[in-house]
Amino acid sequence: MEVKENIETDEQADVLGEDDKDSDRAKWYTQTILQTELADYSPVKGCMVIRPYGYALWDNIKNALDKMIKDTGHQNAYFPMLIPESFLTKEKEHVEGFAPECAVVTHGGGKKLDEPLIVRPTSETIINYMFAQWVQSWRDLPLLINQWANVVRWEMRTRLFLRTMEFLWQEGHTAHATSDEAEEEAKKMLEVYRTLSEEWLALPVLTGTKTDRERFAGAVRTYCIEALMRDGKALQAGTSHFLGQNFAKAFEIKFQSQEGQLEFAWQTSWGVSTRLVGAIVLGHGDEKGLILPPKIAPVQIVIVPIYKTDADKTTVLERSNAIASELKAAGIRVHLDDRDNHTPGFKFNHWEQKGVPVRLNIGPKDCEKNVVEIARRDTGTKTRDVSQSGLSEYLTNLLDEVQKAIFERALNFRKENTHTIDTYDQFKDVIENKHGFVEAYFAGSSEDEGKIKEETKATVRCIPFNQDHPEGKCFYTGKATKIKAVFARAY
Amino acid sequence: MEVKENIETDEQADVLGEDDKDSDRAKWYTQTILQTELADYSPVKGCMVIRPYGYALWDNIKNALDKMIKDTGHQNAYFPMLIPESFLTKEKEHVEGFAPECAVVTHGGGKKLDEPLIVRPTSETIINYMFAQWVQSWRDLPLLINQWANVVRWEMRTRLFLRTMEFLWQEGHTAHATSDEAEEEAKKMLEVYRTLSEEWLALPVLTGTKTDRERFAGAVRTYCIEALMRDGKALQAGTSHFLGQNFAKAFEIKFQSQEGQLEFAWQTSWGVSTRLVGAIVLGHGDEKGLILPPKIAPVQIVIVPIYKTDADKTTVLERSNAIASELKAAGIRVHLDDRDNHTPGFKFNHWEQKGVPVRLNIGPKDCEKNVVEIARRDTGTKTRDVSQSGLSEYLTNLLDEVQKAIFERALNFRKENTHTIDTYDQFKDVIENKHGFVEAYFAGSSEDEGKIKEETKATVRCIPFNQDHPEGKCFYTGKATKIKAVFARAY
Repeated sequence: MEVKENIETDEQADVLGEDDKDSDRAKWYTQTILQTELADYSPVKGCMVIRPYGYALWDNIKNALDKMIKDTGHQNAYFPMLIPESFLTKEKEHVEGFAPECAVVTHGGGKKLDEPLIVRPTSETIINYMFAQWVQSWRDLPLLINQWANVVRWEMRTRLFLRTMEFLWQEGHTAHATSDEAEEEAKKMLEVYRTLSEEWLALPVLTGTKTDRERFAGAVRTYCIEALMRDGKALQAGTSHFLGQNFAKAFEIKFQSQEGQLEFAWQTSWGVSTRLVGAIVLGHGDEKGLILPPKIAPVQIVIVPIYKTDADKTTVLERSNAIASELKAAGIRVHLDDRDNHTPGFKFNHWEQKGVPVRLNIGPKDCEKNVVEIARRDTGTKTRDVSQSGLSEYLTNLLDEVQKAIFERALNFRKENTHTIDTYDQFKDVIENKHGFVEAYFAGSSEDEGKIKEETKATVRCIPFNQDHPEGKCFYTGKATKIKAVFARAY
Repeated sequence: MEVKENIETDEQADVLGEDDKDSDRAKWYTQTILQTELADYSPVKGCMVIRPYGYALWDNIKNALDKMIKDTGHQNAYFPMLIPESFLTKEKEHVEGFAPECAVVTHGGGKKLDEPLIVRPTSETIINYMFAQWVQSWRDLPLLINQWANVVRWEMRTRLFLRTMEFLWQEGHTAHATSDEAEEEAKKMLEVYRTLSEEWLALPVLTGTKTDRERFAGAVRTYCIEALMRDGKALQAGTSHFLGQNFAKAFEIKFQSQEGQLEFAWQTSWGVSTRLVGAIVLGHGDEKGLILPPKIAPVQIVIVPIYKTDADKTTVLERSNAIASELKAAGIRVHLDDRDNHTPGFKFNHWEQKGVPVRLNIGPKDCEKNVVEIARRDTGTKTRDVSQSGLSEYLTNLLDEVQKAIFERALNFRKENTHTIDTYDQFKDVIENKHGFVEAYFAGSSEDEGKIKEETKATVRCIPFNQDHPEGKCFYTGKATKIKAVFARAY
């Protein structure tokens, strides 16, 4: 699952080369993550440490998605992380995709193992082995399973959150009685990912189908959500695969149909990972640092008390604590920064860099007047003299407003950076000089896609579901086609 | 962390031998777990699959504990699973304890690694390496970190949930400025474990200190919670270690104190694992199967509709659905078993085995009279003609009552099976014939403990915190002592 995501980015890393690695945006990305303490480098090559601020962000994403996964009828389970090497070879395309990326356990308990164990790069093999034990009759279907887990893929070029040797993710695996039902499932889960991305991460995404070239090895069709980062590069944020009967045949998942026939099950798999944290950083951040959508921000409101004298300190901190308690009781994730070794100015910058959506400033005068000052991270707007009465309702509404504004900002950015072109020259010009998504009639082959990538570093991100337009002419082959594809350089 | 737990049970398994493995209780344990679908065997030696019913149970435990961990000021983070081999050797006792249990990755990305990587058996090494980067000043302390993760320990003799090669757990790691503060932390987290065990799992536990013999290698003191299973064997359910400065010195965790001195930090670590699911099975179950405490039961109420004619079916299912919706809205985890290929009798047994605390039976007559029948799993009591009006309040109260009753039942069982003895002959008689906890004055050495274990298969479970009694005579050495220890055979 999502093998394409990683293989692709790995290839991409080759293409991007060292220049890109040291680009301003790349430096900004790494520095922002380290300074805001989302993550840290670890002494283990290719692995990172997810620090509390980053983990809290991931946890909020995880909790939102977990609820959606359960609301659509799936159940969580847990399968062994170490997989016998022989399992990997059962699906041909699968092993070709993953064997080069595997971490291999050869010794255990002080002895050499008879058969090496693979640290799961994904769990199709072990999960489908179990599915074959559990599925006998149509009554056992659909089987709708999800797993939250860590996986390991041996990556040569890594980047914090976007591409690490070990990462955290969820992987859904399902089995169905009919092809239609499995197709519907794959699309339903892509829609869940779209909802997560747009409504929680505030990142608008294109939904569509991958081309054969970009399809998950072993799948019949791969669906994806594609987001646009603020440097004009695309980022694959999640994939959902209709697997047909490929894995069911490899692992002998057979069931007796309602008509008494023995049939192979139809399957899907789908996953998103801690890569989404990287998507939020790159998709919303500005020169000041992170901009976090309120619905997933670990801290939604930070209170910065401002005082000079000890008497003022007592007054202001007392009021700040009271406000913090009130907001907490209203279900708002609030933090009172009462550190006495930093100036308010330092704190303003600190929390702006950390992307906290809304800041409350409160000083002695504010206490007297029973007001606060409110500063928005996304727009930088400050509102003075907001009444302390009814503050939690005011802020709940404001957080909603900020959530929408961040999404709109990203949507406008995507609109402004989605280009339509008619010729390959235009294509090259846009990719090189304007960046962003390129939407164009395309009827090329996998080989053509390869050539385009070689020449421009751009790939087909997806064939969008929405194809509501007349026939046109392919920008590359000149053939007539009804299909428009979306291209971009990608992470 | 918790190495003792595993080393001990591993030794224990040796001692218990094959007889015990095939004992009725052992068979009951395995069969109950497989039949209720808490877990399944996997094709990977020593590893199990946690099935949805078991995972939901673990998730409820995890959520309750996670909240308590956060409420006590800790933050979650995530550290690499693969640890350079050289890290393990930095704390001497630590490497001696873990090296024989390690799974070793020697190859990655198709190549032999320069330095092998260990799959974490616990994370002191990697986490304390990072702590050393993060801690410079007293202002950086206390550092209160928790990780939810999978770990791997190469076990020769495994048993579902109680001892598996891979298991899920949380591991807390903290660093403090003073010894007192770290001691307080270790005890505070043990108290959190006691609360989790008694108030959520409904399992009364002894709290106390391990003897030197049973102490975590590398710790200054190990605290533990010890539960009594219904076959009279003890089960270590969680441990919390005061590590002193042992790991801080090994990993150079130094900070500048408020007085400007450079000092080593004081530390703790503490953990509980999926072993707790085994504790629930063995601590509450009876010949009919599981008995799950309502607060963590995946399904708290099951509704079984009873009908013969199609007309009755429509009426009964309609009413059942309405009740299910009402209960769900009241925050109750309810399941309506509307399968049409099983009799009500089959369903009664099915859900009793799965340990669902309360069952609602509803037939056509009940619909007419606007009532239901209620059956309790813990007592087997049935109450007819319970009004459908105000049902959610009635059941919320009943679930509380059941939670308390299950705890009281376990507490009474422990009282009845806690024996006091004065002589070694009495000790041997009780251990062999009565089982349970043995409480006795004890002043023996580690060597004495070893001899007692060899002769009776019993170990010191803990020196309880509560030592409110006069001086007495050690049952083994005859020496005068104020210390009473608690012995038992253990899982």
